[in-house]
Amino acid sequence: MSTNNLVISIDAMGGDNSPKVVIEGLNLAHKRNPDIRFLVYGDESKVNEEMDKYPSLREVCQIFHTEEFVHNEDKPSHVIRNRATSMYQAVEAVKKGEAQAVVSAGNTGALMAISKMLLKTIQKIHRPAIISMMPHQNGRYVMLDLGANTECDGINLAEFAIMGNIFAKYALGVEKPRVALMNIGAEEMKGKGEIHVAAHIIKNMHLDMNFIGYIEPHDIPKDKADVIVADGFSGNIALKSVEGTCNLIMRLIKQSIKESFWAKLGIPFMIGAMKKLKSNVDPRLYNGAMFVGLNGLSVKSHGGTDAFGFSIAVENASKLVRKDFIGSIRKELENVDLDELSQEACYEVY
Amino acid sequence: MSTNNLVISIDAMGGDNSPKVVIEGLNLAHKRNPDIRFLVYGDESKVNEEMDKYPSLREVCQIFHTEEFVHNEDKPSHVIRNRATSMYQAVEAVKKGEAQAVVSAGNTGALMAISKMLLKTIQKIHRPAIISMMPHQNGRYVMLDLGANTECDGINLAEFAIMGNIFAKYALGVEKPRVALMNIGAEEMKGKGEIHVAAHIIKNMHLDMNFIGYIEPHDIPKDKADVIVADGFSGNIALKSVEGTCNLIMRLIKQSIKESFWAKLGIPFMIGAMKKLKSNVDPRLYNGAMFVGLNGLSVKSHGGTDAFGFSIAVENASKLVRKDFIGSIRKELENVDLDELSQEACYEVY
Repeated sequence: MSTNNLVISIDAMGGDNSPKVVIEGLNLAHKRNPDIRFLVYGDESKVNEEMDKYPSLREVCQIFHTEEFVHNEDKPSHVIRNRATSMYQAVEAVKKGEAQAVVSAGNTGALMAISKMLLKTIQKIHRPAIISMMPHQNGRYVMLDLGANTECDGINLAEFAIMGNIFAKYALGVEKPRVALMNIGAEEMKGKGEIHVAAHIIKNMHLDMNFIGYIEPHDIPKDKADVIVADGFSGNIALKSVEGTCNLIMRLIKQSIKESFWAKLGIPFMIGAMKKLKSNVDPRLYNGAMFVGLNGLSVKSHGGTDAFGFSIAVENASKLVRKDFIGSIRKELENVDLDELSQEACYEVY
Repeated sequence: MSTNNLVISIDAMGGDNSPKVVIEGLNLAHKRNPDIRFLVYGDESKVNEEMDKYPSLREVCQIFHTEEFVHNEDKPSHVIRNRATSMYQAVEAVKKGEAQAVVSAGNTGALMAISKMLLKTIQKIHRPAIISMMPHQNGRYVMLDLGANTECDGINLAEFAIMGNIFAKYALGVEKPRVALMNIGAEEMKGKGEIHVAAHIIKNMHLDMNFIGYIEPHDIPKDKADVIVADGFSGNIALKSVEGTCNLIMRLIKQSIKESFWAKLGIPFMIGAMKKLKSNVDPRLYNGAMFVGLNGLSVKSHGGTDAFGFSIAVENASKLVRKDFIGSIRKELENVDLDELSQEACYEVY
């Protein structure tokens, strides 16, 4: 795939303050990646109004008017039947081969449902997963599944490991990512049966993967692994626990400072250090959760992010397209029979 | 049960720096609770050496010599067959009715296995759970199960809700605890089947419980519930994610300050506020995870805690004994048929 043909379709109507934030974000992404072309789906007059501010962006954009858009409260079962929405049209552009990735800041469940229905899973992959980058003490790791599959068996987890491994190579630029299964103990027999089955499959699939075994959540921030594999329920629990704890600590720190006369005097000294800390864990830098395992990249930007955050989601998508992420997964799976390995593993574990 | 007969058995040989930390911790607990008597199990000469420092403590202690103790790497299947250890003897004292609770800072799996075998589950309770207090923005909540049961069905979760409700009343002093099931979405049909079954059972058991539905992990620190109910796998994942994130943020803050000339100058102003912050989230204040659901209280102190932390674990245990925690659970279960409710619920959900 020539990088000159890099095309990304955009749902301009998703997220808070759309299409303003979306178009402003596209402009930021465009400045840093002038070779990307965009297919923009949404309310033409509103999109044009924003686009008028960025004449150079307009040159790489094609705007497609849609009458409708997906609302936050819409049910997935409902949105997959409405082809008239900007989200549906943007995903369909990937299905038709007109774009290689789609980015939307809209309703997660809707984007997942439409993407699954239109793009279908890659051959040999049973279930798509949600993957995202997250910060650890020295940089970043990737984690999947963050919520696409409430229940997973060993084969699903093994597939997540394969996809996560390639994702980490391209998105983090790590040559030999350390891949670990999230578990509640490091010992071989701790935790759930499906995790043991997955470990068994991964060890026996003879792929070029640096599988390091199990990891407990408190060790994840210590830079012990690059890819964390979990079922969608546990992954989502871990993600939201991290989010809640960050907010709690920040709130407690602010409160302690507010209540102390001396600390308030010390604030000016701390501003630089706090800004640096904030930039290390800036959620905008990690924006763009991707659905992986489909025949096309589908990227969910946070609904509340700003233009900079949206531009990062677009850029992360383009990075993976340039590296032919999906082709790499297909190639990796060519010589593996996961179903057979899974049968063997289940026999061993249960 | 008269408070004059409050007796707690102590495994003096568990945890780092035992029996030193244990005996010093008992002395702190004794000073604040002179009415508690202790049965102390361990190496007599070592225990006596420490006890010599605290003559007033000695008056409320009875020391029982044991030749052996449980090591950190001992397997549960092994330790339950060795009656000669200080841990086994200390738990057995509760079984015999000589003590009302046991506290150990030793191997968690071993303490759980011995406690389950000797104390047995309360009638009508299918599985014991691990419960602990944790900090939220305005105080504390309790959470269970933190790791005793990797897989749970709806009835287990409903039982955890009943036990957690009573625990919160006594340990937090909340009159009407808000009880919530941990889930990955707040909507009724999100998440796992067993959680929906549990919600159905809880709503129909007609107990005096303020059940508020589902809670997502990022909302837990926002003081939205007093009791968080989860299966042992998810609960453990959430607990360890919180722990890892706290450590990560503290490390990042220290690093940012270290790297900034101005921030270093500001440290003296911040010390008071940081001390206050630290005291709010001091893990020693939350020390003492309890196994609930057994005919006797079994309390696991953190193996690395200090004397103050150990004294808190002892005190938390005594609080629940004074309130007759176990009797309250038995009474609550008298008029409930959870098995029948579970059948109805499974029929509704699946």
